[in-house]
Amino acid sequence: MIHKDLPFSSAEFQRRLTKTRTAMEAAGIDVLFVTDPSNQNWLTGYDGWSFYVHQGVLVFLDEDPIWWGRRQDANGGVRTVWMSDDRVLGYLDHFVQSTVRHPMQDLATRLKDMGRGSARIGVEMDNYYFSAKAYAVLTAEMGDAKFSDATALVNWQRGVKSAEEVAYIRKAAAITEKIVDGLLERVEPGVPKNEVVAEIYRDALRGVDGAWGDYPAIVPLLPSGSDAAAPHLTWDGRPFANGEATFFEVSGCYRRYHAPLCRTLFLGKPDDFLLRAEAALTEGLEAGLEVARAGNRACDIANALAAPLERAGIERGARCGYPIGLSYPPDWGERTISLRADDESVLEPGMTFHFMPGLWMDDWGLEITESILITEDGPCETFCNRPRKMFVKD
Amino acid sequence: MIHKDLPFSSAEFQRRLTKTRTAMEAAGIDVLFVTDPSNQNWLTGYDGWSFYVHQGVLVFLDEDPIWWGRRQDANGGVRTVWMSDDRVLGYLDHFVQSTVRHPMQDLATRLKDMGRGSARIGVEMDNYYFSAKAYAVLTAEMGDAKFSDATALVNWQRGVKSAEEVAYIRKAAAITEKIVDGLLERVEPGVPKNEVVAEIYRDALRGVDGAWGDYPAIVPLLPSGSDAAAPHLTWDGRPFANGEATFFEVSGCYRRYHAPLCRTLFLGKPDDFLLRAEAALTEGLEAGLEVARAGNRACDIANALAAPLERAGIERGARCGYPIGLSYPPDWGERTISLRADDESVLEPGMTFHFMPGLWMDDWGLEITESILITEDGPCETFCNRPRKMFVKD
Repeated sequence: MIHKDLPFSSAEFQRRLTKTRTAMEAAGIDVLFVTDPSNQNWLTGYDGWSFYVHQGVLVFLDEDPIWWGRRQDANGGVRTVWMSDDRVLGYLDHFVQSTVRHPMQDLATRLKDMGRGSARIGVEMDNYYFSAKAYAVLTAEMGDAKFSDATALVNWQRGVKSAEEVAYIRKAAAITEKIVDGLLERVEPGVPKNEVVAEIYRDALRGVDGAWGDYPAIVPLLPSGSDAAAPHLTWDGRPFANGEATFFEVSGCYRRYHAPLCRTLFLGKPDDFLLRAEAALTEGLEAGLEVARAGNRACDIANALAAPLERAGIERGARCGYPIGLSYPPDWGERTISLRADDESVLEPGMTFHFMPGLWMDDWGLEITESILITEDGPCETFCNRPRKMFVKD
Repeated sequence: MIHKDLPFSSAEFQRRLTKTRTAMEAAGIDVLFVTDPSNQNWLTGYDGWSFYVHQGVLVFLDEDPIWWGRRQDANGGVRTVWMSDDRVLGYLDHFVQSTVRHPMQDLATRLKDMGRGSARIGVEMDNYYFSAKAYAVLTAEMGDAKFSDATALVNWQRGVKSAEEVAYIRKAAAITEKIVDGLLERVEPGVPKNEVVAEIYRDALRGVDGAWGDYPAIVPLLPSGSDAAAPHLTWDGRPFANGEATFFEVSGCYRRYHAPLCRTLFLGKPDDFLLRAEAALTEGLEAGLEVARAGNRACDIANALAAPLERAGIERGARCGYPIGLSYPPDWGERTISLRADDESVLEPGMTFHFMPGLWMDDWGLEITESILITEDGPCETFCNRPRKMFVKD
């Protein structure tokens, strides 16, 4: 009766597992406990909105991974992971949000029962959803184990995308383009913001031919005028107004893969300072895209962007991008490389980034961005193909 | 130029602060560091999708709270919190996702500069977004401070809703009803699931007269047939099919307040076992609603529900509800009281719950639920008013 629809081939999952095990061995880890939902999905296929309770994937060097979570979510586990059903373990509901019990007690018992009581265990100290309390309970219960910080260990393995992954990001990008086309058409003075977001979601979830829409890991962000100084404000019911720039940060999503894009729309006649900022920003974008090549470094993109902005007297003070791909809320970034002056990570073919040089000044903002793929040779490819400019409706 | 649109009156924010300070004093806490986004909003009004980086609210006994976060998000802070601008602090971007620096170093420095280096500091060890690493760095940097676990300290203050809050939940409930009406109308055999979700989001975000729609803290959940055994599966592009039950767990959201509801829809002629389960479940719901009164306990609801289910041979094994109100992803529950047999919390007027007795069996599932308000006297009030049954389209 169970319909399994794994997102990737068996070879792809094995490739990921092998890569991760190699990194575990290099770090001296016998058992890796993976709590980041994106990492869980990447390794096993697990997919469900259950990350609000404690759960995770155990990766071993010498046996198949185990998905472990709340018992009712084990039903989702056996339906979404590539491992056999006996590699899905559920803990009793009385551990959930209890003041006297903690799910990590269950995990500790199981690890000890598996003979892993004195193992070298890697935990994602600074990924999502591994709380301070989870760590305190797990270490207290497993006094003989040796814990080490494996923050982003799996994330780093995800940097170079396979052809299967790039194909998913392309589908997400087609949805992104549809979203952007729709909002540029619909936004007019007097239209309430939430009504435009309603159509953004409708476009995003209906998807495009051959790609149904999944939920993005970040909701649409679209602050206007002075509020565009704040990158992460969401929406309300006020109407769009003449004389204001609004940036739209959106992403289509296909099977958890993302292709974020930002465009800015000005209603009315933009001030000169905005036009100058737009010119400097697009010049910086072009310069950054030009050096986003295999063999160059993350900082090369950041430095190329910075030069024209500096000439225009614009100081950003924030990184200008991050890797993208598979993600769950609250973030669609991969949290490894940052496009900034002190990051010397070397770019490799198959890496994917959101090149995201948002300008957030004291009382205005401007975002024009691209999701990009580092290619074998030559400059990067942009996943979306839309004019790289501030749109104006006068 | 900055437009502030605080969601609540000054008196309401002061009431919350006073309540929280009383709880801090009882717990021996001088400074409370609040990382849970819902708690941050409840105390200060802070609203933005920035919880993917480290941020939080510092609550003091003797001065106004401080919102602390990434510098670019301080722009959102001054636009959404009730405190004056000098109570909003931003850290430099080079702390973000760095392998050599951590934002908690900035927080520690600031606390020491404020003369709080040897304070008794409460931290939310098991709320969202306070990572194991955050705790490790903060405690290492502040060796003279005394840390204690303040998990859910603020959440417990949120249990009894004010009239202003109940009014918001009523608006969310009106949106929920609109969502449910729409999906019952639209779901038919052959309609792709993602297309129905597209319309759910459109209805949710357009809202109703007098209430624009905000994003819910959990995406719509709507597994069908055998997959309905798994409570937290999301959707894909497959069509709804005849002969399958689908449960829909959805919530409208108004200014971050929620009113979740589940209804199940069967396409075709339901099997007898499903009809028997429906009868037992609705009998249990009625019994639970009847005892959901001020002065009774959380366990009374769970026990009233359990009796008819047991008579029908259905063993649930999971709690049957949780408090609701203000929330951010990944959860719309408040994580304090659980409606289950061993929770003896006394129900008070103004408390709000999602009474949520989902049935998730090995290869089928059924959800019929209510969001409820505990009243001054008499049985509870349901926020939504829709037939309490499994809907059937034959």
